[in-house]
Amino acid sequence: MEFTAAQIAHILEGKVEGNSNQKINTLSKIQEGSPNSISFLSNLKYENFLYDTQAGAVIINEDYQLKEKVSTTLIRVKNSYTAFSTLLEEYHKLITFKKTGIEQPCFVGEKVIIGDNIYRGAFSYIGSNCKIGNNVKIYPQVYIGDNVTIGNNTILYAGSKIYADCVIGSYCTIQSGAIIGSDGFGFAPLSDGSYKTIPQIGNVILEDHVDIGANTVIDCATMGSTIIRKGVKLDNLIQIAHNVEIGKNTVIASQSGVSGSTKLGENCVIGGQVGVVGHIEVANRTSVGAQSGISRPISEEGKSYFGSPAVELKQNLRTYSVYRKLPELLKRIEELEEKVLHLLPLES
Amino acid sequence: MEFTAAQIAHILEGKVEGNSNQKINTLSKIQEGSPNSISFLSNLKYENFLYDTQAGAVIINEDYQLKEKVSTTLIRVKNSYTAFSTLLEEYHKLITFKKTGIEQPCFVGEKVIIGDNIYRGAFSYIGSNCKIGNNVKIYPQVYIGDNVTIGNNTILYAGSKIYADCVIGSYCTIQSGAIIGSDGFGFAPLSDGSYKTIPQIGNVILEDHVDIGANTVIDCATMGSTIIRKGVKLDNLIQIAHNVEIGKNTVIASQSGVSGSTKLGENCVIGGQVGVVGHIEVANRTSVGAQSGISRPISEEGKSYFGSPAVELKQNLRTYSVYRKLPELLKRIEELEEKVLHLLPLES
Amino acid sequence: MEFTAAQIAHILEGKVEGNSNQKINTLSKIQEGSPNSISFLSNLKYENFLYDTQAGAVIINEDYQLKEKVSTTLIRVKNSYTAFSTLLEEYHKLITFKKTGIEQPCFVGEKVIIGDNIYRGAFSYIGSNCKIGNNVKIYPQVYIGDNVTIGNNTILYAGSKIYADCVIGSYCTIQSGAIIGSDGFGFAPLSDGSYKTIPQIGNVILEDHVDIGANTVIDCATMGSTIIRKGVKLDNLIQIAHNVEIGKNTVIASQSGVSGSTKLGENCVIGGQVGVVGHIEVANRTSVGAQSGISRPISEEGKSYFGSPAVELKQNLRTYSVYRKLPELLKRIEELEEKVLHLLPLES
Repeated sequence: MEFTAAQIAHILEGKVEGNSNQKINTLSKIQEGSPNSISFLSNLKYENFLYDTQAGAVIINEDYQLKEKVSTTLIRVKNSYTAFSTLLEEYHKLITFKKTGIEQPCFVGEKVIIGDNIYRGAFSYIGSNCKIGNNVKIYPQVYIGDNVTIGNNTILYAGSKIYADCVIGSYCTIQSGAIIGSDGFGFAPLSDGSYKTIPQIGNVILEDHVDIGANTVIDCATMGSTIIRKGVKLDNLIQIAHNVEIGKNTVIASQSGVSGSTKLGENCVIGGQVGVVGHIEVANRTSVGAQSGISRPISEEGKSYFGSPAVELKQNLRTYSVYRKLPELLKRIEELEEKVLHLLPLES
Repeated sequence: MEFTAAQIAHILEGKVEGNSNQKINTLSKIQEGSPNSISFLSNLKYENFLYDTQAGAVIINEDYQLKEKVSTTLIRVKNSYTAFSTLLEEYHKLITFKKTGIEQPCFVGEKVIIGDNIYRGAFSYIGSNCKIGNNVKIYPQVYIGDNVTIGNNTILYAGSKIYADCVIGSYCTIQSGAIIGSDGFGFAPLSDGSYKTIPQIGNVILEDHVDIGANTVIDCATMGSTIIRKGVKLDNLIQIAHNVEIGKNTVIASQSGVSGSTKLGENCVIGGQVGVVGHIEVANRTSVGAQSGISRPISEEGKSYFGSPAVELKQNLRTYSVYRKLPELLKRIEELEEKVLHLLPLES
Repeated sequence: MEFTAAQIAHILEGKVEGNSNQKINTLSKIQEGSPNSISFLSNLKYENFLYDTQAGAVIINEDYQLKEKVSTTLIRVKNSYTAFSTLLEEYHKLITFKKTGIEQPCFVGEKVIIGDNIYRGAFSYIGSNCKIGNNVKIYPQVYIGDNVTIGNNTILYAGSKIYADCVIGSYCTIQSGAIIGSDGFGFAPLSDGSYKTIPQIGNVILEDHVDIGANTVIDCATMGSTIIRKGVKLDNLIQIAHNVEIGKNTVIASQSGVSGSTKLGENCVIGGQVGVVGHIEVANRTSVGAQSGISRPISEEGKSYFGSPAVELKQNLRTYSVYRKLPELLKRIEELEEKVLHLLPLES
């Protein structure tokens, strides 16, 4: 896609200063511009970049006073930051949803219902009895098992895998390599030391507006459903075990793991590389620092935790501040011992 | 698949109370039933659910006395828990092994020997000189490199990848996105600060009854084999480095990693997000708590470890119990210093 | 490929003792030999294996004196270790680059430029406007999005995924399941507790000689580029977030993660399961121990860090050595308190 500066100014209700025919096909930071990119200046910390930017056009506030001549084309608007954000989102939407049509070969099973305005990339696979909503984008090499339902406007990037019987909501985004519905990890020990697999026959439900990161794994429930509530955002390489439930709008950073049957509350913020044990509940609005290990239920809402095992952040900081001084503490104890020794009445 | 309550009662040697023709096509917990699901009541903690369950049928003990009328169909058996477990396993086996036949397009190289009753999903790839056993299920988009051998009754879920020369046993299950046989991480530093790749020409051997979780990675050996012994169960997103050997029936939870050339014993139980350093041996029946780091060899069998770096669990708990009180300890030291100061003879 | 002992001796400028026609088709350790493998003896610690090795041939130093008769064929060379290394590398190169040609079906978009001596495996996907260099090996089920550039002699193993607009250098190796260019994790909180996705429109640049491990993920930049500099080696299951830059020749072990906008220096060595916070710079030649958490900028070059949160290694060891003795320390404090109590003047 390519636009002229004039077309963009029109969309943003702004005014061009310079070359109205300047061709624009991407967006950039002001310090990383290229001849066909458009950038913006809002924070005056970056003001100097305006005068030697390589960007073909720059969005600036209408009241901004030039210090010297600029070679780039300017688009003056009320609020340059807001205008650029709008542009960025529209551009992203265009890019993200532009793929349509069917590339061959791709596979569709029996009794599949497929909506309008679909993209089905080459080597993608849709099993039998699936229902695929409108405007869904199924990139190449995606796998969708039997009996899967996918809501409208959901994007499955290349190579993501949805096991049979899962339910994916609308406006979800699933990055490459994510696995939804793999068998949960359940084994019963036998008397000879070996293990018997506990059958996992449940599924995974992703509600609407859920984002799943690359190579993240969500196991199906043993029975029933592993549930990811509306608006949850999971980063890359995360493990969600069987029968977990993640509450609405909870955000989890990369490489964290939630063990089986645990229920995370709503609007929690979980850092990277965090572990949460199984079979507990974690209250709404809980924050957990990176690399922490949540080993007990959390019942009070809105608290912050840190450490492995995690304790309340304040307590962690207090304890850790003493931990750091341990060698000094040892010395103080030794000095005390020395002094006390000299004070002791001689026992004869 | 669909059965009537009467058919299921016949299999379980039980007796129907209610609608013998009730159609059943799945299993559920008693509190999550649906009209065509069958559930069970064993633990009387869940007794109340019996009277308002949505399940089409419920398996109960033959001596259970109803408290009031039930709307669901009952199947009375000797032991409802055992009966339901049996049903669950049979159902799971049916589901898991029901796929057969060849979906097109799929790829097979030269000189490949393929057993009976195979499923080869669309876009699956089998390289040259492979031997595939009977009853093997190769889901869509699976990759099997050249010279790979796969035993009977093994399932490779969608998109799992087996590099060339690997050997996979019988009754193995490999979840989606698992990678078996990728190059080990070996680099020799050169004088200019760069690194030279150390060639990795070995393979991976999975013995029988091994389960590999989704997106787990097992690197091939530098030379020889990385070996996963019989009955080992690996959860999702695990890293097994080159030349590692994992002993029989050892179980490892999600996101743990074992570094190169380490040999884990038999019947070990390793928690999630654990790290094990390279080039050590870990004794049989070792237990390791979640997020621990095993940094030294473990020679005594049957012990439990915890912490990073990990020490024996008892020692860890003892030390940690003092750690938690560090701020208080500091205060006690300060008080002692104060007191001792006042006791000291004035040195004039 | 198969060679005779005589042919190998010729390559290595060595001399055969035994069966010149011995067929060789692989390499092995001396203690793991098979009839058609060649091995070597350099370290005399392994001398005993020479006399009962199963290897078809063994490379030894020309001045080595046999202790007894050997059944294997010997190839005598100046330096057996160097000779074997050479052989190993040549063998590896042969194996790695032997695939050529196009397997069907595979997909190529419009306006794609493809070099010579390419391998394109079945079910591989190349989007529109891509440029693929000479001697590139694209294994089955690889995905290459639109507008991607790939340099000469780069290998993409089965199922690796490159998102649109990424740039991959020459002599790179990308293992199976690696994801290059997935959306970065950026969300702006809204007043109702939900999150709005921040569009990620940047790309990933991999310079030359970069190795990426299996199932490792590198997110694209929000705008601009996530950059992996020349000679960087990343192990398996690593997370590199948006806008990160990894300096030349830096090596990162498995399951580590680097958060958004962080800039790692050159020639750093990062252990496994390490986390690095976002928006910091880490100096050149920094070493970080396994499971550490780097939570602050590191400005001094060439230092070692350990722990979570990480501190300088020496300090960590000093502190930890006291930590281990905490229960004993508590006892010493209690004893002091007892003694001081007895010394105190009675306050009447």
